[in-house]
Amino acid sequence: MTERTERPGGDGRSGKPIGVAVLGSGVVGSQVVRLLTEHADDLTARIGVPLELRGVAVRRAHKHPEVPEHLLTTDAEMLVARPDVDVVVEVIGGIEPARGLLLAALQRGASVVTANKALLAVDGPALFGAADAAGVDLYFEAAVAAAIPLIRPIRESLAGDRISRIMGIVNGTTNYILSAMTATGESYEHALAEATRLGYAEADPTADVDGFDAAAKAAILASVGFHSRVSASDVYREGIADVSAADVVAAAEIGCVIKPLAICERVDTPGGSAVSVRTHPMMLPRSHPLAGVDGAFNAVYVEAEAAGRLMFYGPGAGGVPTASAVLGDVVAAARNLVAGGHGPRESAYAGLAVQPMGLVPTRYHISLDVLDRPGVLAAVAGAFADDEVSISTVRQEGSGDDATLVLVTHVAPDASLARTVSRLEALPAVRKVTSVMRVAEEY
Amino acid sequence: MTERTERPGGDGRSGKPIGVAVLGSGVVGSQVVRLLTEHADDLTARIGVPLELRGVAVRRAHKHPEVPEHLLTTDAEMLVARPDVDVVVEVIGGIEPARGLLLAALQRGASVVTANKALLAVDGPALFGAADAAGVDLYFEAAVAAAIPLIRPIRESLAGDRISRIMGIVNGTTNYILSAMTATGESYEHALAEATRLGYAEADPTADVDGFDAAAKAAILASVGFHSRVSASDVYREGIADVSAADVVAAAEIGCVIKPLAICERVDTPGGSAVSVRTHPMMLPRSHPLAGVDGAFNAVYVEAEAAGRLMFYGPGAGGVPTASAVLGDVVAAARNLVAGGHGPRESAYAGLAVQPMGLVPTRYHISLDVLDRPGVLAAVAGAFADDEVSISTVRQEGSGDDATLVLVTHVAPDASLARTVSRLEALPAVRKVTSVMRVAEEY
Repeated sequence: MTERTERPGGDGRSGKPIGVAVLGSGVVGSQVVRLLTEHADDLTARIGVPLELRGVAVRRAHKHPEVPEHLLTTDAEMLVARPDVDVVVEVIGGIEPARGLLLAALQRGASVVTANKALLAVDGPALFGAADAAGVDLYFEAAVAAAIPLIRPIRESLAGDRISRIMGIVNGTTNYILSAMTATGESYEHALAEATRLGYAEADPTADVDGFDAAAKAAILASVGFHSRVSASDVYREGIADVSAADVVAAAEIGCVIKPLAICERVDTPGGSAVSVRTHPMMLPRSHPLAGVDGAFNAVYVEAEAAGRLMFYGPGAGGVPTASAVLGDVVAAARNLVAGGHGPRESAYAGLAVQPMGLVPTRYHISLDVLDRPGVLAAVAGAFADDEVSISTVRQEGSGDDATLVLVTHVAPDASLARTVSRLEALPAVRKVTSVMRVAEEY
Repeated sequence: MTERTERPGGDGRSGKPIGVAVLGSGVVGSQVVRLLTEHADDLTARIGVPLELRGVAVRRAHKHPEVPEHLLTTDAEMLVARPDVDVVVEVIGGIEPARGLLLAALQRGASVVTANKALLAVDGPALFGAADAAGVDLYFEAAVAAAIPLIRPIRESLAGDRISRIMGIVNGTTNYILSAMTATGESYEHALAEATRLGYAEADPTADVDGFDAAAKAAILASVGFHSRVSASDVYREGIADVSAADVVAAAEIGCVIKPLAICERVDTPGGSAVSVRTHPMMLPRSHPLAGVDGAFNAVYVEAEAAGRLMFYGPGAGGVPTASAVLGDVVAAARNLVAGGHGPRESAYAGLAVQPMGLVPTRYHISLDVLDRPGVLAAVAGAFADDEVSISTVRQEGSGDDATLVLVTHVAPDASLARTVSRLEALPAVRKVTSVMRVAEEY
């Protein structure tokens, strides 16, 4: 328990407005400013006192027609230092200058609302520590899946439960690309080009397609869901750039679709509980609720011991939905300033270790072009047996030059499966490993 | 803004445990007790101090093997009056004695967590008033859709947004029955009997099948979503007992399924905004996300101006999931006792009126057995025109004794549509109105 230090708040406020500063006026920041203005009366009624926008920090003080000119400033440091700023909203993104500004704001006793997944996933504990020390709030609903309520349900609604798994589609760009590949059969390169043309992918799509964005979100979800410190570098990360049209076909053949997933789950190890945190494409049965989540939508499945299986679905990106999440957090922070008290602190008491990917139990789907001659299946089966990987189903298709073996394994440590694939690649009877993809366990 | 009165809490607690009393030890209460015990260490770590179970009030002090005998009491009044009880959990259900006990608890300064939808929908304002006066919390996540986080997302996550519609499947029994009718084509009576046999429906299914349960939940959702006081008696209520196998077939013919919905939406009226709150079966296009929610599952769609369309899905009933929601609220109330401050108060500032059902814009699907002779369509069309109801699609099927007209209207006031149906029933050319059902607007 942290001692609460003196700060504006509690019953002493008596109607004094709450000052808000917004750092950043891009696609999210400008919408935060718009909603703060348009919903002012509602917000006042819901909080008990008005929110007053003290300033908007921008890099260049022009081209922000949506923000009243007298509120614009290029001096973010000065803005967060103002004593009449009670809540600092950060929607700049990236590590610096966001980190320095937020630490400064927290240290002088302002509450912080941030959408900055990268910063939280890299240096969350420093921010939480500063918030705790000052007795102020750090809210970040907008950092994962925009307006879909996820952080609050996990930290608060499920606070009496024990979460066993969080699995979701948390990146709209990659889901859009894989959905397009599934719908049309086109190549990854084609689908990416189309996504870029339509604005679903950025000019430099690295953060999305290589899984950095999803990994940061997975780190945040794992941290709050499992009461442990998980940073982006702890997350096993595989992007979607290697997903081929052949993989999409292979998935369809076993009644699956390929989805870009972030997965956080409690795993039992000889040393006790640990947590597996990873992001990679995966084959999901069409009957799985996440399989139908297409395009730029996000959805997250949360399994808890008592609550059972919950799903949260909605638009996972965009300035307006993200601004909704930001404002929800601003209201929460403001209500705490009015009523006293504070939102949930960092909860890392469980201190679960992150299980290395090689030890994580997974299942693989593997398609092989093989020579059509006796003994091939025996050789292939031997490659699996060498690592004690057991085969769930095997199907031979075609013959002669078109002979194909399609195998789905039982659950085995990921490293064993990876070694099995290497061994298959070296087999004389195997002409080519055409598709390798993790596939969901029965659910 | 309410002045905070003195109560145990804030920094003065310094490690003192939080006393919890549970009223009721049925299917939910016994699970609350179990989770409180099994998760004790986690709960302590999450709250900062331990929760201590002070007693469990039961009607008869035997047959509760899951509760330690010394904690059982038949004197609920004495239990809620104990000064070492900080949080009272009420899972008795019904109006009295729950109301009297909760008011007594709130008045003496205990926080309350309740799953009692009926009480909240009938007398919520009295409970909120007592909580406000004492400066304590009243939480009720479990009152709607069990462990699916809904109340907290609406009251907190969306507190900076403006909700336009809440539409969901909030009663598992009726969804189970209609899902079975859709899957098998069987009659309502048959499906109900099967649901009763399997334990999905109670021996007296009235509260579910006549829509009382869903109406209470709709009242609660409308109250929190639209910042207005809506009670169960304000809710237009139609059960599912009149849904026939013919209706199910008629729905399938237009690509729909029939779902038991609770709908709360903001409507524009000449006098300003109002809210429409109702529960009735409705035809939904198969492509609608709620159409795929089958069996005893619940799902709620929330549309907000900025957040867009969000869906929350999960098990909507059952002792264990409901206990998860209860415990989440207990943790929230306990954290507030530790940190000072309190959860959201009743928010009824908008004071929206409830629009009478007759004025609510809806669309109807109508199937008619008609005489197969010239002029019939003209007569039928005339019946619609008399109330200025315009027809969206009309389809004639069969001929002679089997002639059927299937019509879907455009949106019109519900009363106009109802009058049109009466007029159709009186037409000599109409032998029978075989199916009438509201159908979703395009979404």
